[in-house]
Amino acid sequence: MIIDKLIDKIIEKQNPSAVGLDTCLAYLPLDMQSSIKNGNDVCNSIFEFNKRIIDKIYDIVPAVKVQIAYYEQYGLYGLEAFKKTLDYAKSKDLIVISDVKRNDIGSTAECYSKAYLGGVNINGFDINDFESDFVTVNGYLGSDGINPFLDDCKNNDKGIFILVKTSNVSSFEIQDRQLRSGERIYEIMGYYVSKWGKEFIGKYGYSSIGAVVGATQPQQAIVLRTENPSSFFLIPGYGMQGGKASDIANSFDARGLGGIVNSSRKILCAYKSDKYSKLSFDDAAREAALEMKEDLTSALNAAGKTMLKKKLKGV
Amino acid sequence: MIIDKLIDKIIEKQNPSAVGLDTCLAYLPLDMQSSIKNGNDVCNSIFEFNKRIIDKIYDIVPAVKVQIAYYEQYGLYGLEAFKKTLDYAKSKDLIVISDVKRNDIGSTAECYSKAYLGGVNINGFDINDFESDFVTVNGYLGSDGINPFLDDCKNNDKGIFILVKTSNVSSFEIQDRQLRSGERIYEIMGYYVSKWGKEFIGKYGYSSIGAVVGATQPQQAIVLRTENPSSFFLIPGYGMQGGKASDIANSFDARGLGGIVNSSRKILCAYKSDKYSKLSFDDAAREAALEMKEDLTSALNAAGKTMLKKKLKGV
Repeated sequence: MIIDKLIDKIIEKQNPSAVGLDTCLAYLPLDMQSSIKNGNDVCNSIFEFNKRIIDKIYDIVPAVKVQIAYYEQYGLYGLEAFKKTLDYAKSKDLIVISDVKRNDIGSTAECYSKAYLGGVNINGFDINDFESDFVTVNGYLGSDGINPFLDDCKNNDKGIFILVKTSNVSSFEIQDRQLRSGERIYEIMGYYVSKWGKEFIGKYGYSSIGAVVGATQPQQAIVLRTENPSSFFLIPGYGMQGGKASDIANSFDARGLGGIVNSSRKILCAYKSDKYSKLSFDDAAREAALEMKEDLTSALNAAGKTMLKKKLKGV
Repeated sequence: MIIDKLIDKIIEKQNPSAVGLDTCLAYLPLDMQSSIKNGNDVCNSIFEFNKRIIDKIYDIVPAVKVQIAYYEQYGLYGLEAFKKTLDYAKSKDLIVISDVKRNDIGSTAECYSKAYLGGVNINGFDINDFESDFVTVNGYLGSDGINPFLDDCKNNDKGIFILVKTSNVSSFEIQDRQLRSGERIYEIMGYYVSKWGKEFIGKYGYSSIGAVVGATQPQQAIVLRTENPSSFFLIPGYGMQGGKASDIANSFDARGLGGIVNSSRKILCAYKSDKYSKLSFDDAAREAALEMKEDLTSALNAAGKTMLKKKLKGV
């Protein structure tokens, strides 16, 4: 099951983090930026940047999270770079999380699911350009918008992370509203994630149907971790957005498992910081990724949540 | 202002409807389907189908709604067909609504907004492949995920429709939950849409920041129309999903304005129905679009909401 593969890799690398390849042109070194003359150069430069980062981090991190919005802004050229990035990350045996936050009614959600988790077959040939291990999904439309993804998760051994409590400052406006029944909206969403994920629970007790819970939301993370023991968390918001490793430990269980923490800009743009200014962008990214790993594992240890050292055998 | 342009066109054509170009290969006539041998054929066939539909409807409908999921499932080939479809619809002076339901935190929402409502400039050249007049957006993340879209709406005279009450059967699961304060979640979302839209109100009293309110939700539409007099509604769910014209009248004001109703399959696949089986797919689409126009205007008349016959002069 894909969630087991992800957790196996986290344990193998003793690193519960993902590198976020949210690559926009402003993150590239100036010489790379200035040589861009047309759309094809946009595609090639972004892919070259990502490839060099992947080459320097694939042995130390279990997964990459690729935020499609950064590619979509560059139209078809950007989306070609997105596809090439996914393909290259898969060739390096990384777990690929496509952060797409797609959502729609059932028949349309089915198309989105095919785009990322299933592919289509037409007269005997396949199109599966954006195949990913996991995608993020927005659950505001309810079950019939989620079911097509669940079908593909089952048929193709894929996973999804559903937005529950997001990392941004105004996430409280809708998500923290309290219902007559007492719960907050994010708790209701968490409840549905658990419900939708029941048939996808793997050997570690976690489901391939997980939840997005921002690193900036430590109090809500305690609630959600308690109420949803089998939901694995995708945790954005570490680093530039202000999420601290000590807070993130709230999302983990006593085995040091339960979530994967994403950092994007702090890794991609590490070479712009004073600390790493003497390094190339890819070497700086590796150092920043190692620093993040150390920060997270220290915080887990300090919280008495030292990570399992050995993978569970397949069950 | 873009909302005025849309309403002007609705009045000019006396037709408050959009044709939904949710084109998947299964909708194409069998001879078009069977000649597809590779990805480029996928792109060309979908575009050819859309082009022929647009040629037959552009003089009678004000707008098209293009659902990107149907294109995204065919990867880069599909997205090229999406771009070509948007370009062709614009060349025929149709208002283009890209139904993308994008959503993310502020910095990422900015990328999505650029993809559809702003474009990017890189070293002196522009990329704006997916430029649209309106996009749909999911507001679950709150204000900071919406603000970048508002900025582009202001700077580039664009509009958005935010999901408030969707047309699918399980939309009640989250959207109808009642808060301690008494309102339902869809009412809160409607409130925010009105708030976000305050600075975008045009000559008809409607804002370029509108709401998605499903045709299948007539009771909620009454509530939302009353509570949000300046929100223009994008109304999906008519036709195949079961929304009736008589119910849809609830979303309109006494001038017969206030919404645009979308129909996709019932128009694209009209040639498959007994009624139009002797017509080509594009002629059948025109007949079905005229039938929809007649159905909607009759229902508005029956509800005492006969549409204005003359556009307001610019104010």
